[in-house]
Amino acid sequence: MRYYHDSDETLNYEQVNRAVEAVFREHARGHVQMPPKVYITFDHGDFRTMPAYVPSLGIAGVKIVNVHPDNRAAGLPTVMALTVILDVDTGIPKAIINATRLTDMRTGAAGAIAAKYLSPKKEVILGVIGSGKQAESQVEAISKELTITGIRVWSREEKNALAFAARFRDYSCTSTSIEKACDADVVVTTTPSRKPIVMHEWIHEGTHINAIGADAPGKEELDPLILKRAKVFVDDRPQAIHSGEINVPITKGLFHAHDIAGTLGEVVVGVKGRKKPDEITVFDSTGLAIQDLAIAGLAMAGGKWVELPFP
Amino acid sequence: MRYYHDSDETLNYEQVNRAVEAVFREHARGHVQMPPKVYITFDHGDFRTMPAYVPSLGIAGVKIVNVHPDNRAAGLPTVMALTVILDVDTGIPKAIINATRLTDMRTGAAGAIAAKYLSPKKEVILGVIGSGKQAESQVEAISKELTITGIRVWSREEKNALAFAARFRDYSCTSTSIEKACDADVVVTTTPSRKPIVMHEWIHEGTHINAIGADAPGKEELDPLILKRAKVFVDDRPQAIHSGEINVPITKGLFHAHDIAGTLGEVVVGVKGRKKPDEITVFDSTGLAIQDLAIAGLAMAGGKWVELPFP
Repeated sequence: MRYYHDSDETLNYEQVNRAVEAVFREHARGHVQMPPKVYITFDHGDFRTMPAYVPSLGIAGVKIVNVHPDNRAAGLPTVMALTVILDVDTGIPKAIINATRLTDMRTGAAGAIAAKYLSPKKEVILGVIGSGKQAESQVEAISKELTITGIRVWSREEKNALAFAARFRDYSCTSTSIEKACDADVVVTTTPSRKPIVMHEWIHEGTHINAIGADAPGKEELDPLILKRAKVFVDDRPQAIHSGEINVPITKGLFHAHDIAGTLGEVVVGVKGRKKPDEITVFDSTGLAIQDLAIAGLAMAGGKWVELPFP
Repeated sequence: MRYYHDSDETLNYEQVNRAVEAVFREHARGHVQMPPKVYITFDHGDFRTMPAYVPSLGIAGVKIVNVHPDNRAAGLPTVMALTVILDVDTGIPKAIINATRLTDMRTGAAGAIAAKYLSPKKEVILGVIGSGKQAESQVEAISKELTITGIRVWSREEKNALAFAARFRDYSCTSTSIEKACDADVVVTTTPSRKPIVMHEWIHEGTHINAIGADAPGKEELDPLILKRAKVFVDDRPQAIHSGEINVPITKGLFHAHDIAGTLGEVVVGVKGRKKPDEITVFDSTGLAIQDLAIAGLAMAGGKWVELPFP
C-alpha cells in the first residue's frame, strides 16, 4: 500500500481537465457507481465520505474530506482530504493519497470543462467572486480551455483581491466592485456565502456562471432570479439538489428539480448545452467523487510515494 | 498523521468487549452519528464505506472494508479494512489504521456482549457453525463474558472443524454434525451462506444464537421459522433490515421490521432483553461503524505507528 504525499507535484491542468472531462462523459453514460456523499457533522465543521467506482478507468475508492471554517485561526486549511484507492479485483487498499490540493484542482477542472462548453465565446473577460484557493484554481484551469483577455476580481477583503490581481497580472487582472466583476463573459463564484451576493441585475445576457461555492445545505451565492432566467446545469442531480447552488432556492420553492437543464456530463457528450449566444448559463458545481478518482489516477501515475505495510 | 500497522498487537478481548459494550450503550441513547453503510459493487466482490461519530469518545472516522470471496486463491484475505480517523475539532486526518484484524475483533466483541446479556446461563456449551476467523473471534470474545464448558463445532470441511477443535481443546472442543452443534446453550453462526443451513427443529428452547454470517443482501444462515419462534435483536434496525440475517426473510414477507424485539444497545441499557429461560433469542449482527471507532480508539491508545506527512 502506497502513501502519496506530494500528490499534485507532477500534475498540470491540461491533463487534469482532460481526465475530469472523461469522467463526466462516463457519468452521462451511466457508466459509474457514485452513491450520494455522506455527511457527518461536528460542532465546528463536518466531513463528507465520497465512495465511487469508474469501471472504464479500473479505479475505485473513497475520498474523505472535511470542512472546518474556523481552521485558519489554527493555521490549518479549512478543507483537507484523503483518498483511499482499492484494487478492483481483490479489494486490497492500493493507495492513500493526500487529496487536499487535488480537491482544489479537480474542482477547478470541472469549472474549466463547464466554461469550455458553455462560455459564449473562446476569448473571455473573466469575473471572479472571492479570491481564495478555489478562485485561483478556476482561473488556472479555465486558462487551459479559453483565452482569458482580462480578469475582474472582487473579494470582501480588498487587500486579498489586490494580492489576487497581482498574482494574475499576466491576464490584466484588476480588483473591482462585485457588480463590475459580474460584468464579464464568464463569472466564477467561489465564496462560502449563505445568502445571495451576486444580484440578478448585474448579470447580462450571454454570461456563463460557474457557481462553485455552494457545496452544503444552506449555502448559496446567486440571486435566485438568476437561476430562473438561466439554463442551469449541475454536476449531479441528487447532489446539487441536496447541497448545490440550487439547494436553498429548491427548499424555498423558488426553483424546482424539473428546472434543471441537464448535467455537465450531458453537456460534454453533446445532448444538452448552450443553444444561443445570449442565453445565461449556470454550472452548479458540488464536486463529485468520480472527479476525485480521475485525479487520483493521475496522481498515482506520476506521484512520489512511500510504501506502507499492508495487510 | 499516523499509520497504525500492527494495530491489534496490544489489544485483548476484555478491553475490546468493554469498549464495544460502551458504544452500544451510546447507540441506544441516540448519542452517535452513523449513516447507513454505502456499498460499491464489483464483478468479484464489493466494498463498504462506514462513516460514524461517537461524541462521548471524541472520535470520528470512516472504515473502508472489502469483501472479495475469491481472494483466498490469490493468497489474500477475503475481507480487508482500513479505518481513517479525523480530528473532531479540525477535521485533519489523525490516523490511518490497518483494521483487518480489528474488524474480526470488534465483531467477536459484539457477539460476546450479546451472549453476556442474552445467554440463558453463565456456564454454557457453545455451538459453533463455521470454523474460520470469525468463529475463532466469537469463541475468544465470548470466553471473557461466559464460562465455556464445551464447544461443538461444525464446518463444511471436516478437516477445518478438526483443526478448530484442536485449537480450542482447552474448552473441550469437538467436531460434530451441524445438528449436534445446534444442541447448545449459545450457538454462533459464522458462514457466508446464502440459504438457511441451521434448521428450526435443531434449536431447542432457551438457546441464544449469534447470527454473524449474514452481512449483505441475499445472505442468510437460519431457517426463518427460528426467527418466528425467537426474540430477534439486531445491532441496528436499518442495517439489519438491509443486510442482516433478517434481510432475506423480510424480502420474502416471512419476517417484518415490526417483529424485531429491539437492538443490542437497548439490551445493554436494560430496556429490552431475555425475559424467560426458555425463550429463544437471536442477535442479528451486521457490524456497525461505531464498533470500528470503539476499537480504533483502543488501537490508537496502545498501537505502534509510523508518522506520515500531512497536510
